[in-house]
Amino acid sequence: MRKIALVLSFLVVLSSCKSEVNPETTAQTADVKMDPLPSWNEGETKNAIMAYVKGVTTEGDANFIPEMDRVATFDNDGNLWSEQPAYFQLFFAMDRIKALADEHPEWKTTQPYKSVLEDDMSTLMSYGEHGLLEIVMASHAGNTVTEFEQIVKDWLATAKHPRFNQPYNALVYQPMLELLDYLRANGFKTFIVSGGGIEFMRPWVEEVYGIPKDQVVGSSIKTTFQMNNGKAEIVRLAELDFIDDKEGKPVGINKFIGRKPVFASGNSDGDLQMLQYTDSNSYESFQLYLHHTDAEREWAYDRDSHIGRLDKGLDEANEKGWTVIDMQKDWNVVYPFQLNK
Amino acid sequence: MRKIALVLSFLVVLSSCKSEVNPETTAQTADVKMDPLPSWNEGETKNAIMAYVKGVTTEGDANFIPEMDRVATFDNDGNLWSEQPAYFQLFFAMDRIKALADEHPEWKTTQPYKSVLEDDMSTLMSYGEHGLLEIVMASHAGNTVTEFEQIVKDWLATAKHPRFNQPYNALVYQPMLELLDYLRANGFKTFIVSGGGIEFMRPWVEEVYGIPKDQVVGSSIKTTFQMNNGKAEIVRLAELDFIDDKEGKPVGINKFIGRKPVFASGNSDGDLQMLQYTDSNSYESFQLYLHHTDAEREWAYDRDSHIGRLDKGLDEANEKGWTVIDMQKDWNVVYPFQLNK
Repeated sequence: MRKIALVLSFLVVLSSCKSEVNPETTAQTADVKMDPLPSWNEGETKNAIMAYVKGVTTEGDANFIPEMDRVATFDNDGNLWSEQPAYFQLFFAMDRIKALADEHPEWKTTQPYKSVLEDDMSTLMSYGEHGLLEIVMASHAGNTVTEFEQIVKDWLATAKHPRFNQPYNALVYQPMLELLDYLRANGFKTFIVSGGGIEFMRPWVEEVYGIPKDQVVGSSIKTTFQMNNGKAEIVRLAELDFIDDKEGKPVGINKFIGRKPVFASGNSDGDLQMLQYTDSNSYESFQLYLHHTDAEREWAYDRDSHIGRLDKGLDEANEKGWTVIDMQKDWNVVYPFQLNK
Repeated sequence: MRKIALVLSFLVVLSSCKSEVNPETTAQTADVKMDPLPSWNEGETKNAIMAYVKGVTTEGDANFIPEMDRVATFDNDGNLWSEQPAYFQLFFAMDRIKALADEHPEWKTTQPYKSVLEDDMSTLMSYGEHGLLEIVMASHAGNTVTEFEQIVKDWLATAKHPRFNQPYNALVYQPMLELLDYLRANGFKTFIVSGGGIEFMRPWVEEVYGIPKDQVVGSSIKTTFQMNNGKAEIVRLAELDFIDDKEGKPVGINKFIGRKPVFASGNSDGDLQMLQYTDSNSYESFQLYLHHTDAEREWAYDRDSHIGRLDKGLDEANEKGWTVIDMQKDWNVVYPFQLNK
């Protein structure tokens, strides 16, 4: 059954390209009532998403939005892939710092590097999100962007998540992959807007999410242009350029995208300003929060979590009637590798 | 004849969408040998462009480039539209500074603002490109991005170019519009990479060039996110964020696009690093310089110009065999409003 649903969902995408539909196919697909979101259980959340998309894409509807303005932004960590027991980029950074430790003897006695080398996660986490971002950024510098892209790809090909023993980017959410496809099939342009490093995401998000590299907004370190023996290179510097989190998200959206989104999806208080910004769109807009409620299949956390805390955001979602995904209730599968094959 | 050529060129774009071609249309178009670049005279320049595009888009060709990697970047000032007798954004900035002068009495005695208020272009120009950028950025701050977008649109609807008495964005180059269309019809993603202000370009480039707002890279001032009485706003600050010129161009390309272009088009030494960066692509790449040689229909300037100086770039183009457009010789029309209708 599952396989059939997936094949059908692929057909929905195809059929959205009107010129490729012939009457025969249309008749067949109408018969089976294809579901573009097969991993979403029937209920309020799925209905709210589909009603919104139908309204804003129906010409003549009071809420119709021209295709050019259908911008959808998605947080990444904890929203498109998991973020526990720590941001995956942190595991990457720790592996990098260990690999580079011989060149940086001072790290043995300097925090937060020391805790990384000692695998002391609780001390490391005590430095908070900014401390973590600093570690991430510092451990990512001193090479060219070409070299760094290869380092990320090599890491993803070899490193395994401690709980699921899968490559980290196998821990993406199947329902969100379907949502991205569904929005694109309805003329939305999908963007990632993440606190994570932009160059940590670009090497793999295109293949995994179908989101082109130039539709990724994220935190960054500074770079510089160099000509080395006639070869042009962009070199990565150990200096923060931009933190794409909290108030930084609308700022990053305006800088990189230049258009206010109509659809925003996040999972933490770090996404609140992005949702508020989207909510101020003069078009009918949609705010989606993913609430991690599934300790068995994924993780359960919200108001007290060090990572991906969802506290103010949950209150504001309730006040404003934003849509909140209850992972346990709304999703019939979490990861693609859990699909019945 | 001209009208027919344009209609045909529109058909080329349509026919690139394979699913919309029916055998009848194909037969018709094959008969008339449609020219996708009707404003380009036959010759080396046009041949070089078309030979490159044909090679990299032909599966099985040694130089074939997958569609995903077909990134083309275009400078704007002096490359997609004119830049004489001064950058058009400077005329906008001067009009803005005059409009805001009552709120800034100190400008009457402070350079380079004083020269703006006195219409003293030669003193103003003596402050060089960075001085000009500073004036431009400073005159653009203190409002929300929504307000600023409207100010730009209002200015374009009313201001006229001193020589041609046309709206400034009527002074775009017809041959470059055709080149953008031609590249897109061949699967290239087209981007602007300009030293000009990103938010000065975004309000109009989509309509004029067919380049979406999120495919515009440019210089920027800092912004901040604010909630004002429950309404989310991005406010523009009088502080430079990024200068997207010279070495800044490859840095901006890497930051915003995340992929090395295979095709780069510019007209000044400010574009040289972008062309060098593109030239280092492991794919077959194409470098295009526009040489302003037409004093009669546009302007003639290169090595000694204060604006859009093309000196080192011209030498490097000759050394490396990059393609140089001779405007007078290669273009049979410059502006769309000069087309025979």
